[in-house]
Amino acid sequence: MRLLRSALLLMAFGGTAMTATSDEGMWLPNDPPRELLKKRYDFDLSDPFLKRAMLASVRLNSGGSGGFVSPDGLLVTNHHVAADSVQKLSKPGQDLYADGFYAPTREAELKCPDQELNVLQEIIDVTDRVNAAVKPGMAPADAFKARRAVMSEIEKESLDKTGLRSDVVTLYNGGLYHLYRSKKYTDVRLVFSPEKAIAGFGGDVDNFEYPRFNLDVAFFRAYEDGKPAKTPNYFKWSAAGPAEGDLVFVTGHPGTTQRLETLARLEYRRDHSHPYTLARLRAMEAALHQYGEQGPEQKRQAATDLHRFANARKAFAGQYQGLLDPAVMTGKAAAEADLGKMLTLSSDGDGKYPDRYRDALARVAEAQEKLGAFEKEYLLLEGPTPSAGPHALGSELFLTARHLVRMADELPKPSADRLREYRESNLESLRFGLFSPAPVYPDLERAKLAASLTFLAEQLGGNHPTVRLVLGDKSPAVRADELVAGTKLADVAERKRLHDGGKAAVETSGDPMVRLAKALDGRSRTLRTRYETEVEEPERQAYAELAKLRFAALGRTVAPDATFTLRLAFGTVKGYEVGGEALPFHTTFGGLFDKHAKLGGKEPFDLPKRWADGKDKVETATPFDFTSTADTIGGNSGSPVLNRAGELVGVNFDRNRHGLVRNFVYTEVQARHIAVHSRAVLEALRKLYPADALVRELAGE
Amino acid sequence: MRLLRSALLLMAFGGTAMTATSDEGMWLPNDPPRELLKKRYDFDLSDPFLKRAMLASVRLNSGGSGGFVSPDGLLVTNHHVAADSVQKLSKPGQDLYADGFYAPTREAELKCPDQELNVLQEIIDVTDRVNAAVKPGMAPADAFKARRAVMSEIEKESLDKTGLRSDVVTLYNGGLYHLYRSKKYTDVRLVFSPEKAIAGFGGDVDNFEYPRFNLDVAFFRAYEDGKPAKTPNYFKWSAAGPAEGDLVFVTGHPGTTQRLETLARLEYRRDHSHPYTLARLRAMEAALHQYGEQGPEQKRQAATDLHRFANARKAFAGQYQGLLDPAVMTGKAAAEADLGKMLTLSSDGDGKYPDRYRDALARVAEAQEKLGAFEKEYLLLEGPTPSAGPHALGSELFLTARHLVRMADELPKPSADRLREYRESNLESLRFGLFSPAPVYPDLERAKLAASLTFLAEQLGGNHPTVRLVLGDKSPAVRADELVAGTKLADVAERKRLHDGGKAAVETSGDPMVRLAKALDGRSRTLRTRYETEVEEPERQAYAELAKLRFAALGRTVAPDATFTLRLAFGTVKGYEVGGEALPFHTTFGGLFDKHAKLGGKEPFDLPKRWADGKDKVETATPFDFTSTADTIGGNSGSPVLNRAGELVGVNFDRNRHGLVRNFVYTEVQARHIAVHSRAVLEALRKLYPADALVRELAGE
Repeated sequence: MRLLRSALLLMAFGGTAMTATSDEGMWLPNDPPRELLKKRYDFDLSDPFLKRAMLASVRLNSGGSGGFVSPDGLLVTNHHVAADSVQKLSKPGQDLYADGFYAPTREAELKCPDQELNVLQEIIDVTDRVNAAVKPGMAPADAFKARRAVMSEIEKESLDKTGLRSDVVTLYNGGLYHLYRSKKYTDVRLVFSPEKAIAGFGGDVDNFEYPRFNLDVAFFRAYEDGKPAKTPNYFKWSAAGPAEGDLVFVTGHPGTTQRLETLARLEYRRDHSHPYTLARLRAMEAALHQYGEQGPEQKRQAATDLHRFANARKAFAGQYQGLLDPAVMTGKAAAEADLGKMLTLSSDGDGKYPDRYRDALARVAEAQEKLGAFEKEYLLLEGPTPSAGPHALGSELFLTARHLVRMADELPKPSADRLREYRESNLESLRFGLFSPAPVYPDLERAKLAASLTFLAEQLGGNHPTVRLVLGDKSPAVRADELVAGTKLADVAERKRLHDGGKAAVETSGDPMVRLAKALDGRSRTLRTRYETEVEEPERQAYAELAKLRFAALGRTVAPDATFTLRLAFGTVKGYEVGGEALPFHTTFGGLFDKHAKLGGKEPFDLPKRWADGKDKVETATPFDFTSTADTIGGNSGSPVLNRAGELVGVNFDRNRHGLVRNFVYTEVQARHIAVHSRAVLEALRKLYPADALVRELAGE
Repeated sequence: MRLLRSALLLMAFGGTAMTATSDEGMWLPNDPPRELLKKRYDFDLSDPFLKRAMLASVRLNSGGSGGFVSPDGLLVTNHHVAADSVQKLSKPGQDLYADGFYAPTREAELKCPDQELNVLQEIIDVTDRVNAAVKPGMAPADAFKARRAVMSEIEKESLDKTGLRSDVVTLYNGGLYHLYRSKKYTDVRLVFSPEKAIAGFGGDVDNFEYPRFNLDVAFFRAYEDGKPAKTPNYFKWSAAGPAEGDLVFVTGHPGTTQRLETLARLEYRRDHSHPYTLARLRAMEAALHQYGEQGPEQKRQAATDLHRFANARKAFAGQYQGLLDPAVMTGKAAAEADLGKMLTLSSDGDGKYPDRYRDALARVAEAQEKLGAFEKEYLLLEGPTPSAGPHALGSELFLTARHLVRMADELPKPSADRLREYRESNLESLRFGLFSPAPVYPDLERAKLAASLTFLAEQLGGNHPTVRLVLGDKSPAVRADELVAGTKLADVAERKRLHDGGKAAVETSGDPMVRLAKALDGRSRTLRTRYETEVEEPERQAYAELAKLRFAALGRTVAPDATFTLRLAFGTVKGYEVGGEALPFHTTFGGLFDKHAKLGGKEPFDLPKRWADGKDKVETATPFDFTSTADTIGGNSGSPVLNRAGELVGVNFDRNRHGLVRNFVYTEVQARHIAVHSRAVLEALRKLYPADALVRELAGE
């Protein structure tokens, strides 16, 4: 019975596409799709190819992916991934984000205040050990704690043993647990960053659109002991780039997909999470837009935050259209039913498969119902992840205050009992960010805080106890002014003082941001515990069951949902059709100048002077950006795109809007990811900047 | 007992300000604050002054106010009020909104496609007749119908008798009913409109801010029988303008305030209506912003819609901060309690005042609870007013379809039984808009419709029957494409065909927009009836009772809330302080050029070429905009500001952000309205444009 009707079953788990006949999949480096590649592309995925894909791929802690492109620690990523660091290296009157930067010598490279790179070295399956810690019949709260404890234990052991960053990652929503060991670089320096106008040509208008003309690349260099890091595993920069129909690979860190989620979960997202998220993103975007409009300096300060919110808003809006497309939901429902039938027919599982399946689906549905009762307040006070911060307090300064308050409580406990972000193996990275000397802009903090406090009241109502606790007797705008004006946390020394002083220092601090974080912590932790025990743990257990059933029926023929961990995707370089019009697989420099002229050169279709003046210096037929069918998602920004030889032929930077639905369903009818062509980078660096040393390094000279 | 503790009681009704010692009040033309003006300003409000204020004040059907400024039908209003007409007179490549317009001769004046002006001629109190139609003990549905019928009857009689536009208006939320008879002008021509950059200098950033530098004026001319209308009642244009400390009057049509609403109603607004409204405005603003960013022509098409939504979003955001300020709400609660005490102590009312008061407050509170159960769907399908259209279908074409569908059902009925907007006395104005030849932009319609359909799903959830009814088996974006591509309603002839064909034509129409309007009409009317019977009628009755109690205790010492009807406000020309900085009562031309230079001349701080080049032509000390304490609100845009002599010294165009809370509470600590100085207009018209004929007409030459 196994593997029977596998195409149908793949639909059940992959949505409506059929993996066996498609390029779907963000595959695990230790469970690569060798057979599929052999069958579809007659390609032998070799161990050296895989090893290099792993050891030359880089995760940036600011979010996004990159890859080493020289043996001397040089790495490429997207301009919009580098933006956070570039912004932090800028100051009033010196706007590297807008104006670009190039270091012609190593001495001129600029050290980023808080950029950390991780490079995966090794993966170890720890599923059995993690699952063994959770005893049958344990209450959810105990199960959650036992699981958290064993994960923390495994990580600590690994860190002590190897000195490598060690993270236990959850795959298949709880079906597998793997220990990832990564090499860490914290001395990262900026080598080259183009002007915002050419990196983000078309801005928010062209985001998720195609044809595109973006030189969305930036180069950093990793350093160790004050010297360029030795990176013998790197991707050779292809001078030719890809041709139409080529097989390509994308290696990177896709963030999150929801393809293996159940129908009940997707309906919950459609009717609750997405509307909430869209409302929040629009509120923050409007506030940042308004802040930036006040003048050039405000615009500079708000630029990367604004891009982040606008980009997310557009992505979620596209996903939401997908969730509202009845074809997507009825497809999901049909597929879920089909798997049920399949399991009914199965002779394995002692006839218990159907019951176990129904039960697991019901448990996921039940978790959604529970979530609905408190999700908004949970996200407002606790945020989706500890690093993102609470939605109601969209301020770096508050997040700093919260870390200081919680570290005072958590650090005295054994690592295994702490809130997960304060586990021993994570502290170095956490402190690296906490003590970052990156500039803080009080007026921007105030604007973000006022907008998020207002959003809090909009969501919970003006008389809600949490709203009154946060606002006191003030309106949101006045409260934001008071908090930002009163806090000293913009000063790194003050953060260090409170950190080093521990509980005593935090308890006696009169800093209004610290006091607010303290006042909120009880309620916030209560909601977090509720989420962990009523939603997270029951979902994990139910999804683990669903994964077992799927493995039993299909083996590992479906890749796990994206989890910000390293994955390998593959696809074909090709264009697509929209409304009868065939869009080519790549754009050209000539196309860029045409579009610039056609739209009058007005922002966001303006060009940096060197580009506007340099039209005659470049070969207009040179490819600029290109598309392929490979399976990517947010987090893949900056991902190296490789050819069969493992050479870098492009740098992924976006999907088209047809690809936004890929969170839920893979499709390749029109959906494409978009990458900067490797030739475009060389052409621009040679003719327009010029950046000879960088070109020579890329050429391996 | 009467009039005892009146200051306190005025607080109860006016919020926290004390009318007796403040400039609060948007006063009825037939119940003016003569005593107050005598006492505070030693000013005798004469009948001729009042008569001219009424007969020279103009209401524009596009929203906003204006005033005649010559005996030949010339009227001034704001550029942003004129924008709707100016936009409709523009076309691709000829952007009068952005580039301005001046007709040096009458022949060159441009006829607006659908601008209607109303000038109030007479007011008659019909409270007794309206109330008599509603018999004690009537069920709310019957009471509502009886009231609607008698209002329609009164209006029809008046129209037949006088030929004047006749509207029964509700004052004090149901305390009084007045019949307003207005002269109507439908041949309105554009005379002068400055460039958007100077009319709206500072754009959304400076909206509701001060100091300001906006030449936010435009001039139309009313025509009758193809000739300039004779308007012997007009405001003389003051060459000097106001001086600091001057008493000024604002005559115009303030839209809505909520100062007489109960605490329960304001809490409902805070916790339900305002968050919903803010979410909607942000969604539409983001969509329009995105649409306009696609290129110059899209920007031109979206400009006035975008301004409208951005302006509303900023206004509601400011109001919302006020509602979240505990001082406002506790002040309201205290004042409400104080009136209760006052009524307890009163010897009038046979001791029944306290019970009646408690009961009326309870009925308002109960109406809010009922409203909470269906308000979102009601607003989504039916909209706040018939002219605004349903929130879920933010498309001119859908609104046209709905009118056609409903007129086919309603017109065969007696006028008194129709939905109120189809009463006989309103049909001429309605058809004037319905058959407007103003251009329709399909891509813009599509963008607005997609955004509003998406908002519908966000608010009700993807599986809600109304959502499925509207979307069918499509996502919002695809459904919007289909509706706009399929409808023929952009063609005025098709609208006329369906209108003239009545029910038979509508029933057989295959137009997708008409079919959708038909399909939705049942649900939509059900919600409307529910609103009328569960909320509107009970509130009217309760507020009528509250008004009676107030009149009994205080007489007519408190002006009614604003209702888009003509009002007279007064105040003192003066600046204010922010954060220790004294802001002068007027800005200057020199200040404009300074700000332009300081902000690098970038949009929205750019200047039209004639201004940038004309710096040396003008006297830099000339006043530009000024502020006064007079009580205004949205709808007062374009209001003439008059001096003691009844001359026009300014044209109101905005409030500062401190004034946004005036919806709920009048304050004059920092709150100001902002007007264009009459000298600024003359200086600009003389030196920069030049517009000699217009200047001569204003000077009475």
